[in-house]
Amino acid sequence: MDLDLAQLRALDATVRGGTLEAAARALHITPSAVSQRLRALEVATGRILLVRSKPVQVTDSGRAVLGLARQIELLAAEVARELGDDEPDRTPTLPIAVNADSMATWVLPALAPLAGDVCVDLHREDQVNTSALLRAGTVMAAVTAEAAPVAGCTSTPLGTMRYRPMASPGFVRRWFPDGAAREALARAPVVVFDRDDDLQHRYLRARVGEVAPPAHHVPASAEFVTAVGLGLGWGMVPDLQRRATTADLVAFDPPAVEDVALHWQQWRLRSATLDRVRDAVLTAAHRELAPAG
Amino acid sequence: MDLDLAQLRALDATVRGGTLEAAARALHITPSAVSQRLRALEVATGRILLVRSKPVQVTDSGRAVLGLARQIELLAAEVARELGDDEPDRTPTLPIAVNADSMATWVLPALAPLAGDVCVDLHREDQVNTSALLRAGTVMAAVTAEAAPVAGCTSTPLGTMRYRPMASPGFVRRWFPDGAAREALARAPVVVFDRDDDLQHRYLRARVGEVAPPAHHVPASAEFVTAVGLGLGWGMVPDLQRRATTADLVAFDPPAVEDVALHWQQWRLRSATLDRVRDAVLTAAHRELAPAG
Repeated sequence: MDLDLAQLRALDATVRGGTLEAAARALHITPSAVSQRLRALEVATGRILLVRSKPVQVTDSGRAVLGLARQIELLAAEVARELGDDEPDRTPTLPIAVNADSMATWVLPALAPLAGDVCVDLHREDQVNTSALLRAGTVMAAVTAEAAPVAGCTSTPLGTMRYRPMASPGFVRRWFPDGAAREALARAPVVVFDRDDDLQHRYLRARVGEVAPPAHHVPASAEFVTAVGLGLGWGMVPDLQRRATTADLVAFDPPAVEDVALHWQQWRLRSATLDRVRDAVLTAAHRELAPAG
Repeated sequence: MDLDLAQLRALDATVRGGTLEAAARALHITPSAVSQRLRALEVATGRILLVRSKPVQVTDSGRAVLGLARQIELLAAEVARELGDDEPDRTPTLPIAVNADSMATWVLPALAPLAGDVCVDLHREDQVNTSALLRAGTVMAAVTAEAAPVAGCTSTPLGTMRYRPMASPGFVRRWFPDGAAREALARAPVVVFDRDDDLQHRYLRARVGEVAPPAHHVPASAEFVTAVGLGLGWGMVPDLQRRATTADLVAFDPPAVEDVALHWQQWRLRSATLDRVRDAVLTAAHRELAPAG
């Protein structure tokens, strides 16, 4: 297979940007030049690599070639840097999926020291299933609650985020004057992240059984904690986030905890950049998260 | 058309929850009972109302019936409340799309005082086009940059969010020692929200032309500001958010501003609840945002 670096870059940029136009902007060429390179790459590999939807979708063959493209691109950027050729648009970019609560707490400080050497392209895990993002080649690594390694990936335990039911002092006075009683929990408004967030109802099922109190949905991590702090409802807040927020929060049912085990999944690639990011994430996780299992 | 309130509720709960199982949980009935009510409603209206995908999708006919269902549900909840029958699962729920930066700043404090009387079901505007959410009946109102009213909706100007290019003091010392020079802007890393966020590159095009500096993507609003504060790159930060954050941020190019005009779109419904939410949002907007136009 006769591979051309410019063609591989066109594939990478198109998947990353979602459209031929975005790839053209990133590569400083015209959309029709991007299209020609993609076609040439499909001829060279004898496979359809992309479905030209908006955004484009990677085929199974496309994923394999994309993996190679990104590995080559990372290695080329690393060699260029070693040779002292660090023009800014050669800074390698690592697309990583991160679950919302990790993005809001420990992941950004972990990545900040590397930011001069690598561009982080974060994806919210909650938007789409992380394994789909890893399989599709949209991301090369993930901080995720999914333990089972995606095909072609390794999975390493990071530790657990510990959640507790919390509320504002005013909310506790109004709804839980006698503590987290069953009757009160069945009626007190709750703040839920989104329709995939089962943490609050898992706690309710354990304490009260099947109940459906009024529920507010606030699908952003820091804003979720803000809503709990403003007294919209109670919610399951990570210990890490409680420490970081300025909102006044009370753990109104102290023994109750829900632990979410997190994992680092990454493509099987030999890359100094990916290794450095992995080391930074693992070090921060061991410092900030409770031990795994 | 012979409409049945229980059937309309099944439709509403299914669209809100995304699946028949979620609707069943919310209504305390079995999934097969939900399915029967949906079929009966489709027979009564003589139309296919839902595509049974995961999550379900509303057809054009379904949207019209859903609008009616939600209007009836809101009015029924309002009358129940007037009559003193405020059992918790009758608290009306208002699904609202909100752009990420508004959710991170002025919208939650505006809605908090109403939280005992209405459940807010917020949707991030950036995930999907807001007009699609309004048209699909997923939300009944929106805080959005889209001015043109969606069919069946009214649009009211809220004011503008003012963004300025900001960075951490350390980042400014390293990258902009002589101010925001063209050469520096072409090379300095930038933080971008997601692939739809054009604010940073709009500023760059106006100041420097077409350049592609290294870019980090951080697709969550508070976390975006955290990343700028940690020195990953510079970014366009709303004045409102700069006031609220504990991060130390410098507006390194003081005359430069980008204004984003926001609008309140809502279904044409006569509902005291929707009116109260609208009033709360408009009052807060006039206090917190710069005047429109």
